[in-house]
Amino acid sequence: MQSTPQPALTSLIKGQMFEGLLLVRSAEQRTASNGSKYLDITLGDKSGEFNGKMWDGTVAAPKTGEVVKVRALLQEYTGRPPLRVDKLRTVPRDEVDLTLFVPCAPRSGEEMLSEIKERAEQIRDEELKNVVKYRLEESGDAILYYPAASKLHHAERSGLLHHTSTMLKMAEYVCELYPALDKDLLAAGVILHDLDKLREIKADDMGVASEYTVEGMLLGHLVQGAVDLGRVCDKLGVRDELRIMLSHMLISHHDLPEYGSPKPPMFPEAEALHIIDLLDARMYEMDLALKAAAPGGFTEKIWSLDQRRLYRREKPEKTEE
Amino acid sequence: MQSTPQPALTSLIKGQMFEGLLLVRSAEQRTASNGSKYLDITLGDKSGEFNGKMWDGTVAAPKTGEVVKVRALLQEYTGRPPLRVDKLRTVPRDEVDLTLFVPCAPRSGEEMLSEIKERAEQIRDEELKNVVKYRLEESGDAILYYPAASKLHHAERSGLLHHTSTMLKMAEYVCELYPALDKDLLAAGVILHDLDKLREIKADDMGVASEYTVEGMLLGHLVQGAVDLGRVCDKLGVRDELRIMLSHMLISHHDLPEYGSPKPPMFPEAEALHIIDLLDARMYEMDLALKAAAPGGFTEKIWSLDQRRLYRREKPEKTEE
Amino acid sequence: MQSTPQPALTSLIKGQMFEGLLLVRSAEQRTASNGSKYLDITLGDKSGEFNGKMWDGTVAAPKTGEVVKVRALLQEYTGRPPLRVDKLRTVPRDEVDLTLFVPCAPRSGEEMLSEIKERAEQIRDEELKNVVKYRLEESGDAILYYPAASKLHHAERSGLLHHTSTMLKMAEYVCELYPALDKDLLAAGVILHDLDKLREIKADDMGVASEYTVEGMLLGHLVQGAVDLGRVCDKLGVRDELRIMLSHMLISHHDLPEYGSPKPPMFPEAEALHIIDLLDARMYEMDLALKAAAPGGFTEKIWSLDQRRLYRREKPEKTEE
Amino acid sequence: MQSTPQPALTSLIKGQMFEGLLLVRSAEQRTASNGSKYLDITLGDKSGEFNGKMWDGTVAAPKTGEVVKVRALLQEYTGRPPLRVDKLRTVPRDEVDLTLFVPCAPRSGEEMLSEIKERAEQIRDEELKNVVKYRLEESGDAILYYPAASKLHHAERSGLLHHTSTMLKMAEYVCELYPALDKDLLAAGVILHDLDKLREIKADDMGVASEYTVEGMLLGHLVQGAVDLGRVCDKLGVRDELRIMLSHMLISHHDLPEYGSPKPPMFPEAEALHIIDLLDARMYEMDLALKAAAPGGFTEKIWSLDQRRLYRREKPEKTEE
Amino acid sequence: MQSTPQPALTSLIKGQMFEGLLLVRSAEQRTASNGSKYLDITLGDKSGEFNGKMWDGTVAAPKTGEVVKVRALLQEYTGRPPLRVDKLRTVPRDEVDLTLFVPCAPRSGEEMLSEIKERAEQIRDEELKNVVKYRLEESGDAILYYPAASKLHHAERSGLLHHTSTMLKMAEYVCELYPALDKDLLAAGVILHDLDKLREIKADDMGVASEYTVEGMLLGHLVQGAVDLGRVCDKLGVRDELRIMLSHMLISHHDLPEYGSPKPPMFPEAEALHIIDLLDARMYEMDLALKAAAPGGFTEKIWSLDQRRLYRREKPEKTEE
Amino acid sequence: MQSTPQPALTSLIKGQMFEGLLLVRSAEQRTASNGSKYLDITLGDKSGEFNGKMWDGTVAAPKTGEVVKVRALLQEYTGRPPLRVDKLRTVPRDEVDLTLFVPCAPRSGEEMLSEIKERAEQIRDEELKNVVKYRLEESGDAILYYPAASKLHHAERSGLLHHTSTMLKMAEYVCELYPALDKDLLAAGVILHDLDKLREIKADDMGVASEYTVEGMLLGHLVQGAVDLGRVCDKLGVRDELRIMLSHMLISHHDLPEYGSPKPPMFPEAEALHIIDLLDARMYEMDLALKAAAPGGFTEKIWSLDQRRLYRREKPEKTEE
Repeated sequence: MQSTPQPALTSLIKGQMFEGLLLVRSAEQRTASNGSKYLDITLGDKSGEFNGKMWDGTVAAPKTGEVVKVRALLQEYTGRPPLRVDKLRTVPRDEVDLTLFVPCAPRSGEEMLSEIKERAEQIRDEELKNVVKYRLEESGDAILYYPAASKLHHAERSGLLHHTSTMLKMAEYVCELYPALDKDLLAAGVILHDLDKLREIKADDMGVASEYTVEGMLLGHLVQGAVDLGRVCDKLGVRDELRIMLSHMLISHHDLPEYGSPKPPMFPEAEALHIIDLLDARMYEMDLALKAAAPGGFTEKIWSLDQRRLYRREKPEKTEE
Repeated sequence: MQSTPQPALTSLIKGQMFEGLLLVRSAEQRTASNGSKYLDITLGDKSGEFNGKMWDGTVAAPKTGEVVKVRALLQEYTGRPPLRVDKLRTVPRDEVDLTLFVPCAPRSGEEMLSEIKERAEQIRDEELKNVVKYRLEESGDAILYYPAASKLHHAERSGLLHHTSTMLKMAEYVCELYPALDKDLLAAGVILHDLDKLREIKADDMGVASEYTVEGMLLGHLVQGAVDLGRVCDKLGVRDELRIMLSHMLISHHDLPEYGSPKPPMFPEAEALHIIDLLDARMYEMDLALKAAAPGGFTEKIWSLDQRRLYRREKPEKTEE
Repeated sequence: MQSTPQPALTSLIKGQMFEGLLLVRSAEQRTASNGSKYLDITLGDKSGEFNGKMWDGTVAAPKTGEVVKVRALLQEYTGRPPLRVDKLRTVPRDEVDLTLFVPCAPRSGEEMLSEIKERAEQIRDEELKNVVKYRLEESGDAILYYPAASKLHHAERSGLLHHTSTMLKMAEYVCELYPALDKDLLAAGVILHDLDKLREIKADDMGVASEYTVEGMLLGHLVQGAVDLGRVCDKLGVRDELRIMLSHMLISHHDLPEYGSPKPPMFPEAEALHIIDLLDARMYEMDLALKAAAPGGFTEKIWSLDQRRLYRREKPEKTEE
Repeated sequence: MQSTPQPALTSLIKGQMFEGLLLVRSAEQRTASNGSKYLDITLGDKSGEFNGKMWDGTVAAPKTGEVVKVRALLQEYTGRPPLRVDKLRTVPRDEVDLTLFVPCAPRSGEEMLSEIKERAEQIRDEELKNVVKYRLEESGDAILYYPAASKLHHAERSGLLHHTSTMLKMAEYVCELYPALDKDLLAAGVILHDLDKLREIKADDMGVASEYTVEGMLLGHLVQGAVDLGRVCDKLGVRDELRIMLSHMLISHHDLPEYGSPKPPMFPEAEALHIIDLLDARMYEMDLALKAAAPGGFTEKIWSLDQRRLYRREKPEKTEE
Repeated sequence: MQSTPQPALTSLIKGQMFEGLLLVRSAEQRTASNGSKYLDITLGDKSGEFNGKMWDGTVAAPKTGEVVKVRALLQEYTGRPPLRVDKLRTVPRDEVDLTLFVPCAPRSGEEMLSEIKERAEQIRDEELKNVVKYRLEESGDAILYYPAASKLHHAERSGLLHHTSTMLKMAEYVCELYPALDKDLLAAGVILHDLDKLREIKADDMGVASEYTVEGMLLGHLVQGAVDLGRVCDKLGVRDELRIMLSHMLISHHDLPEYGSPKPPMFPEAEALHIIDLLDARMYEMDLALKAAAPGGFTEKIWSLDQRRLYRREKPEKTEE
Repeated sequence: MQSTPQPALTSLIKGQMFEGLLLVRSAEQRTASNGSKYLDITLGDKSGEFNGKMWDGTVAAPKTGEVVKVRALLQEYTGRPPLRVDKLRTVPRDEVDLTLFVPCAPRSGEEMLSEIKERAEQIRDEELKNVVKYRLEESGDAILYYPAASKLHHAERSGLLHHTSTMLKMAEYVCELYPALDKDLLAAGVILHDLDKLREIKADDMGVASEYTVEGMLLGHLVQGAVDLGRVCDKLGVRDELRIMLSHMLISHHDLPEYGSPKPPMFPEAEALHIIDLLDARMYEMDLALKAAAPGGFTEKIWSLDQRRLYRREKPEKTEE
């Protein structure tokens, strides 16, 4: 992982030289009117992107989505592309701190996924365990980097696992306080509840969601989740009541019909799933929104919170000890 | 089929003798305090039911749901069960006009089902045809007598087929007027849209729905319909877009989230399905409700019509020709 | 009728000569600073409009709304009006295909109106027939070209008749399937239900609605429709029940109070009228909206459909035969 | 007018003799099994009613709705009709204080109506004045005793005039404070706004509303009010803008679509009319409801106030001076 | 504490002798027509209550709300009060297991209150700590037995403390998972949020709420809570921002205006308070409601859960280990 | 007061000289690159504002918010600040007609406040009188110029007093018509109901509201009003019922929860307060909105009136006499 901080691309001033890592947004070898070959390339980081040229016909155009180490000048005169790229080499993605380019979950996808699978392993009811493991298995690798949304909460690389693993911890706490709850059923519900966001939204391996899939628009992850769960339960011979209850948890976790749930939660584990989901989404969104407000001031109206404006307190959010 | 009309059970006056067909609601051989054996039996028709005794220890108790030919007296004195049954023999159900006992669709289930299957056979897209036929096949015989609801519209024997076949005809008309519609897709949607009412409500073979199933309460026929459809599409290898569109038609046919649809209709065939369904339900319910109103007067408030009261016109509903 | 297709005005490239029919948006004879007389004219087709000059002091300015046959050049240099008109002569409107200039109903207003009047003639109840015929008569000629709306469904030349005549056919089908309905009453409701759109919106004889009238804003076509109907019923001595039922059909045809109906439909013909109206509006709007979407993609959010986005299927909407 | 108070009928104890005025609910001459003729009569006051017999074959049965002076005994033994009527004679209604029998407006209908007509006479705009006077004239005598509702506010004899005349005074005050308002237009709106309650509800000449008319149910007094106003405006040749504005005031005076207004108030006089109407209705209903609450306690939930419960203060509503 | 179980009062059969503890609902010394003195007494437990007589003029009538040790016979003949009390002596309430008479929180009020005060003591911000302690102090002893509601969740003796202390634990968990939250602020919000239920509802020292207070009806515990908090903040000189934020948490903890919150939660601690409150209420209500359902069946519609019916799973709620 | 009208600043044409009063928006002494000192100043009136320079190093910069008498030229060439100020002297604000700069109430704040205090003095109940007077006293001088809102109704200098004093007059009228109302209680409610707008919005002494305070956003003037009232009632020893009723009037005066009232009005004076408030707000907003519409035309959609468009009648709003 890279340790020295690099300047934000859009904070450069004209005439300044930049050295650091950038993400390739697009790149193509072209030929100028004088016959010279050059690389037409757009590079970016989390702060924005610039178009540029590299006058070196020997460099192969890197692929969109690759990370490159770059030495480039932000040029002074208008009428030219802003960047003059002098050096450029591809860097393997796993040597790179991706938070330079996109918002990322605070822990790695691998770590979170393994934790989740471990929890699945501890489920005592064999049928329930099998379903959860099967669904996790068939989700493949995309889950490692998928966001939980295109906007709203957990729109970040590995956001789906971030959301799931936080909820899983909260679920343990909730079951401790309310021991009548079946903790395995609730954990299973948490793990499965958003799994079909993998089918609902399109996202690249940076965890950036671009749009909804046709399936996502016409069916949504609640119903498609129930369909996939039904298929797996059939395959594994899961008993009826368990299949129905799990499916119900999936379709009811948005609570109200106007938020997409055709049925409201009708037993305590379904209700708890909904509330834990709500809590995690709200804490994430509020935290994020408040970053854009001045201390002692208010955010703009937030659409996903019914147009609420949030207050950011004057003193540090945490009392010092 | 029986042709001579028999009096309604509850229209009898005390002392009157009844001869005709009745439905066995319950029946048991018992022994009186004086050692005599008798049949304790409850018999009914569409108008209501009476308890009675038959003093004949040799007659085996018929089963609940059987139809019996009966000769019985409505007794004059209180303190006794109202009926004194003198003769009783079981009648095969297919020799009986079931409209004596329950509301029935105007045509036989067999006739309607065969018509529906014929329409399915004409679907030109092979994948679509296969799905529809498979789903009809696996629904089994219960569809022949199932009602479409426990209360509300088409709560009658074979009501599910009645509702479906009427909508099928309307769908043909609609496609004639709006030729941009895919008439096979719409027909398929009509046939499939309520099929999982078979799993949603419990009904006996008289077509009387007693209550919702657990599956019906926790998932409902829209979501369970999509699950079953997904399973069959997987099995038959139906292409993605077709599977998604058909599933969407199922889950969107109630239109609004508050009526149970997690998605509103998002293409014309889905919208048409919803409107045809609405039309058939409303025409049925209004027709039924108006029977209880006096000409020139109003019905009570009708719950399923948002508490509307309906007006029954003074003159015959139809102008004479 | 003109048969050879002409290029869309806004698809011309600079320097290109245009020959064809254009609609006069405005025109005026002026005198240049050098004393030359010229025609300052704005001309358009369905694709848009351009301003231009015609340097010929002898040509009388045509009237706004006239159709002219034009020979004109799209000029290359900025700083001048885009069009240099060389030739121009007025063309009688009935020799012109108006679809060049505005969306038009698929059939002529005259044809549709005569069909509707024919249906009115078949009404068996004399009082009902008289009312319908009287209301049609007093509506005059504007009905031949009036649209049914300024935006939304049937915002096209003769859209009001298009909407009415399609609904009339659907009404026949509906009455066939639900014979308890009084088919004459329903047909009368269809013919009358939107008639006061003639008083609600202002439209020119191209069928383009510009805005609402004061009457349209403060009363609306439902209430004004009931007022006009009341007046005619008084005049013709229509019996009370018929007047009340017809008036009710008019004011209830939007169904819900939030869509402007002070009463919901309270008998089957009123309900059927509402549903047929809904079906025709939805089919029209969806068809239109989908034209702007790519196959396999979605439309933008559609305001009149509660912000739904519609899906346009990948393959042709119709399965080939 | 009668001056000495008579006991409430239902406050009598068995064996007590009653003398006073009662309203005939029903009466019929019958013949007993022993051949004696008697009058079978039901008599009541505001507190309730009793059935009774009068053993005098010579007395003609009074008509339902007549007021009679009665001498009668409340009998002690069960198994007999409660009242034994000894004397009975009809009393002309105008000699009677009707508040003994029904809730009545605090002033006579004649007085209120003449006041209202006087106000109409002062309208300066001739067309407006004519419309108001014509509509008042054609309403006939029923307006003198009509209630404003069957339940809710001003369900009392002459309640319609009571409501109207109170609003008329408030309208004067409002126009004084907000002089931009056209006080004649507002007064006209007040006088006309509920006039078609005469066609909406059925009431006897005691001012007791029994039910809605067919017209009331299917059209309502807002729309029927606009229809009647339209007819009169046509007849009197009222200019368009005035007709439209007045009609708008009628249909918008319930403000929200869910309360029956197809349009919200769209100019200040229409808004003022709605608010004055609201104020008068609320003050009346609250006053009435609080009578049933104990000081320091709450009423039951009140349906017409969205299930609010009202508080009745402990000390007299008015501070003593 | 009493250890041997006593039979439920309403499970006795006629002729059976009862020995055990009962709660005095009412008691009075009376004199029979023959001059004998007797105690007219109504006694009850959680299952119900019976009226009875004790023929012993020497026993002083115990007070309503006292617990008595009783020996009594459930008498066989009708026409007498059901209970014949033979022996009776008052038992000090702290020697009694109150769960015999009313639903009780699982822990004693004293234990929970001391835990809550301990938490308050750990608040690091002095001003915040002082406010919380002051408000707890001035609440007095009633908090020890007060329920949290008259119906709904935590309608049990010491329910207010039960609700508060459970939420307090959940708040710790939540702050652990979401460390950006100010855990002292959230804990303070939890302790204060329902404190004015003490002023909102009337409850006896059995923790049974009878009705709302005038203050509770007209202001409610949210607004009155803010008023009381404002008063204490003034007195203790709490800084503005803290006062405003704490007050906001009180008035926003019902989230939506239709549930009584004039403002929605506008910072994360306020949102967390609302969600923790919701979770605790829902878990309590669902748990309670499910006790009345059969395994594999559904509860009735539950008003406080928007008419949802809950499912009770067939197998024990907890998987055995 | 200034009597001759001065031209609106933004109506000047280039090269024109302006003499009159302007409001200082900002002003600063600066030094040009050639060493000359000049005043950089922005000046405005109700129509808008211009930046300018005054080349006179000896003039001290006036303060923002001061009114100055100015002689200035609107310069012809671009590239310079629009205004060249030649003379400038500060004018005491009380010599100035503030309506030049901001919308103002039609009467002076002092006059209205003294009228309100006079009314308070006439309250017969001593406790009530004391509370009202105390609250008015502690509100200080800001009330003299405060607006009642930042947008919407009475967004004008002294708008709060304008709104209050108009309502006070209406309250007298209402109590005259509905004598069961306690006129002192209603007057007190009127005076107090919006008093905490002083804490809810930030406004300068021109009566221009810039934004909400933190207190205004998180608590609002309804709740903060109840808090302040509670404090004063405590201090003055007001009896419980009176305190509760007054507080209730404050928190219920927006009527519906969605408009911020945690409780609906629950006694007649609270209801009357709400309706009077509604009437005054609506009359003000409609009057203002209609100024922007052409006679015979409609306003734009008005957000605060649920997107209504208002009609401005063709003829003068008032019939001439």
